[in-house]
Amino acid sequence: MIGGLGRSSAAPLCAERRLLCSLFLAAALFGAASAATRRHDWDISYQFTSPDCVRKLAVTINGHTPGPTIRAVQGDTIVVNVKNSLLTENVAIHWHGIRQIGTPWADGTEGVTQCPILPGDTFTYTFVVDRPGTYMYHAHYGMQRSAGLNGMIVVEVAAGAGGAGEREPFRYDREHTVLLNDWWHRSTYEQAAGLASVPMVWVGEPQSLLINGRGRFVNCSSAAATAASCNVSHPDCAPAVFAVVPGKTYRFRIASVTSLSALNFEIEGHEMTVVEADGHYVKPFVVKNLNIYSGETYSVLITADQDPNRNYWLASNVVSRKPATPTGTAILTYYGGRSSPRARPPTPPPAGPAWNDTAYRVRQSLATVAHPAHAVAPPASSERTILLLNTQNKIDGRIKWALNNVSFTLPHTPYLVAMKRGLLGAFDQRPPPETYDGLAAYDVYAVQKNPNATTSDAPYRLRFGSVVDVVLQNANMLAANNSETHPWHLHGHDFWVLGYGAGRFDPAVHPATYNLKDPIMKNTVAVHPFGWTALRFRADNPGVWAFHCHIEAHFFMGMGIVFEEGVERVGDLPPEIMGCGKTRGDH
Amino acid sequence: MIGGLGRSSAAPLCAERRLLCSLFLAAALFGAASAATRRHDWDISYQFTSPDCVRKLAVTINGHTPGPTIRAVQGDTIVVNVKNSLLTENVAIHWHGIRQIGTPWADGTEGVTQCPILPGDTFTYTFVVDRPGTYMYHAHYGMQRSAGLNGMIVVEVAAGAGGAGEREPFRYDREHTVLLNDWWHRSTYEQAAGLASVPMVWVGEPQSLLINGRGRFVNCSSAAATAASCNVSHPDCAPAVFAVVPGKTYRFRIASVTSLSALNFEIEGHEMTVVEADGHYVKPFVVKNLNIYSGETYSVLITADQDPNRNYWLASNVVSRKPATPTGTAILTYYGGRSSPRARPPTPPPAGPAWNDTAYRVRQSLATVAHPAHAVAPPASSERTILLLNTQNKIDGRIKWALNNVSFTLPHTPYLVAMKRGLLGAFDQRPPPETYDGLAAYDVYAVQKNPNATTSDAPYRLRFGSVVDVVLQNANMLAANNSETHPWHLHGHDFWVLGYGAGRFDPAVHPATYNLKDPIMKNTVAVHPFGWTALRFRADNPGVWAFHCHIEAHFFMGMGIVFEEGVERVGDLPPEIMGCGKTRGDH
Repeated sequence: MIGGLGRSSAAPLCAERRLLCSLFLAAALFGAASAATRRHDWDISYQFTSPDCVRKLAVTINGHTPGPTIRAVQGDTIVVNVKNSLLTENVAIHWHGIRQIGTPWADGTEGVTQCPILPGDTFTYTFVVDRPGTYMYHAHYGMQRSAGLNGMIVVEVAAGAGGAGEREPFRYDREHTVLLNDWWHRSTYEQAAGLASVPMVWVGEPQSLLINGRGRFVNCSSAAATAASCNVSHPDCAPAVFAVVPGKTYRFRIASVTSLSALNFEIEGHEMTVVEADGHYVKPFVVKNLNIYSGETYSVLITADQDPNRNYWLASNVVSRKPATPTGTAILTYYGGRSSPRARPPTPPPAGPAWNDTAYRVRQSLATVAHPAHAVAPPASSERTILLLNTQNKIDGRIKWALNNVSFTLPHTPYLVAMKRGLLGAFDQRPPPETYDGLAAYDVYAVQKNPNATTSDAPYRLRFGSVVDVVLQNANMLAANNSETHPWHLHGHDFWVLGYGAGRFDPAVHPATYNLKDPIMKNTVAVHPFGWTALRFRADNPGVWAFHCHIEAHFFMGMGIVFEEGVERVGDLPPEIMGCGKTRGDH
Repeated sequence: MIGGLGRSSAAPLCAERRLLCSLFLAAALFGAASAATRRHDWDISYQFTSPDCVRKLAVTINGHTPGPTIRAVQGDTIVVNVKNSLLTENVAIHWHGIRQIGTPWADGTEGVTQCPILPGDTFTYTFVVDRPGTYMYHAHYGMQRSAGLNGMIVVEVAAGAGGAGEREPFRYDREHTVLLNDWWHRSTYEQAAGLASVPMVWVGEPQSLLINGRGRFVNCSSAAATAASCNVSHPDCAPAVFAVVPGKTYRFRIASVTSLSALNFEIEGHEMTVVEADGHYVKPFVVKNLNIYSGETYSVLITADQDPNRNYWLASNVVSRKPATPTGTAILTYYGGRSSPRARPPTPPPAGPAWNDTAYRVRQSLATVAHPAHAVAPPASSERTILLLNTQNKIDGRIKWALNNVSFTLPHTPYLVAMKRGLLGAFDQRPPPETYDGLAAYDVYAVQKNPNATTSDAPYRLRFGSVVDVVLQNANMLAANNSETHPWHLHGHDFWVLGYGAGRFDPAVHPATYNLKDPIMKNTVAVHPFGWTALRFRADNPGVWAFHCHIEAHFFMGMGIVFEEGVERVGDLPPEIMGCGKTRGDH
């Protein structure tokens, strides 16, 4: 259940002065005494960077990629003034995991909640971070996220009697943030143009894996790398170093903003206790290494109890797709130890589990349930189930991804504006399919017989306040014996993860197996190869919200949908989100 | 003197329905019977192309670079529906040489006459081609022109009694179009980011010279070329072939859209008679080869009177800057000759004149005067002279170009809208300098003593209908003994070229040397190294008009100004040109 901003009693009060209203309600919800406003001025520009020692133009924030970590306390208001200095390219920034209660126009999703920010313009994102946890931000426009515009958001529990603070169900002494990414040497323009070409040109496996924006391209002496200026002593690609005090317990806040790769993350020699996922407390469990999909965040605890006189690897390895990219590495070092902080550990970096050990990864998914003291019971039933068959399809010579054979395209008039204004023709008004043909007979282990699909930008419109189930059904791709892991991300909500299964979902059988006792709430969840994932959410956040595979190329190729709920309860829209499509010259 | 659209009598009539009004007046001016409307639908997208055999992402029109030649008859209305499919990048297209009488909002100059066209949006350019001649179009946004969005416009003389047709003062049997360009393998993003970096990174000399979009990178086996996919048998880089019928006279319409290079163009073994420059008839003169600067167009006549059994080179060579780029070539072949049309000519391509033979190029400039039967006498005097010292300067660690030590920056609210609406703060309201300090003592052959400059977006506001002189004074750059050729292009007007001189312009002496008898009218003119060029125009076209060096990087680095005249006479602005800067959410 979310706060009161969407309620009809609050709406009239807030109609006139959106921003003040949001701030006022935020203060009311979380305690006026402790809530602060944290302002950031960001200049977005292209800069030459060398994250993996190869020089490449990247989209930076104040000259850096990744951007700064936003730190705040639950209930704070974040104000980010985003100046677009990309010269000819627009931008939009999504605050991934922040539900934007009362501020649906600040979700930063181009085509859904706003028009893009033009070069020379400054757009101000103002929103409340209503829940503690580990989140991230990244560009949400075309394939711009892959160009380097990303960073982390850390929201602390509010302290003191005046706030709505809560104790966290675990203790630690200090913390580190770890942002995982994959990296290509080709520009995102080239990647996107390839995907849009006939025949389609796939982006391929990444050249490098980055930890906090730092990696190492192994083939630096190749012709291509030489031509592209590979410099192994460039300061941009010095490995990230995480220093720990012996005996202390550390919280590692880990986020994956990869464009493509599912990763396995390990801290050599240090077991990890998983305590948080996507801002929700997990019933603690211990792992040697952590599977993390694009769009997910985790907190793990480690104790610095190993030999302090040597260093240890932090390692990220590709899983789920056959790896063609070397292990991404960083260094864990002990304060006071005899090893130089930057010294290469004496052992080879951990290689992670077998890339195709799906069962191993499913076990982690199943182990991730709510902490007993923080479990939020899901509604016992839902009034609507949307079953989405995830398939690879062909349209006009291009490979696409589709849900129930509908490949999603973003409109150029944001839904939020189009719906509030009743702009006809801004998007397909026909309801998209709730399920797929031949549900009972579909062979998810076989190549789809008819790969033809259609494109549409039709949204799913939900009854405000209703409980909705979504079952994401994976299947074989266009190539035989192949099914990928898709990390699906929902904007504007957290959902309960009710269950995972192998093979075809049976609506008559599987709902009875749902975990209604202690399901974890998340905003991003994996759909495992050949399997299904069931989730539930309450459509109680007025706005329009994207729901999509977080693999950048997959969403670009149509793997997403949009939900609308209670848009009539949304207050006056800020004119700054308009200016494109049918809102050109509108306000 | 231009047509009546800007006159106050026409303005009220046209206030309500701009487009119909323009069409009506165009018809009235040029004869309703013959004027046609020519519609084009253009889809602008990135495509992989290999113009010089090296694969590169280019901005294309309907998949091609260069784009289609627009062909029309004097008085026709051109309608171009421009759909932006660049995914995340905006676009704007300038119709170079078309004065946009009555349609100043269709000039396609981002920041001056319109907001850029957003991805997904379609913008319609509607304008009348009021004079016959050879023109071009190209992107006019950031450095986008360099990415491949360019093409030619050919306007024929109106025929028949019903039209305002005029006979051309020369005869020919057939014609060819020749579009000259230079080409880089680095993306325009990389070029622009380099120019905007501290320290500034210069774009360097082009990798290839293109004729009708085709060239040949010579170093195809180098590491860089291999990495970038160099394929000498790619159909995109098959040389352009110009076939001629023996004995016939051909008009070659030549345009240069280069980003940087001054060129010398030659058709091996065939003397050229220059008959047109920038849409104006020239007193014919014969050359072995033709110097052509970026933004210029020429028509030359050749007679196909050589041995038809061999082929001949068309050659373009860099002049004015020390060449580091091989000769650009194409092939002239005779119909019915014994040579294969694509066969390499037996002789080496013409190497052009010495690159630093400034006197040779000045002679051509001086020889280019109006055809006696078509000379338009300039006003005998002007009421205002703006003297612009062209210098290289340093600002905040970057090298810039400046006029009178003011380096131009484009605002993000188009002047045309800001001025019509009185939007305060959209641009610097203080008048920019009319001359430079130390005029009488300035040593144009020496490095400027104080290279510091300021930036400004202040426009020059002209009294409507007034006659204005501009003297462009060249000088030494930041490096000793160095001065470049700058091709200055004026939007919205043709100007009379009154004179050229070496060294420092003396206002007490040189105006007496002006050619007031038969000066050619042009829209682009060279300012030769260490010299000055004087021009005159009548400020009688209501609107806001850019005037800038046509070298893409130079304008990007501040080498331009903006004129306003009679903006109060401009009719209602189309809302489609708004949506950025202070016009976001405006109409």
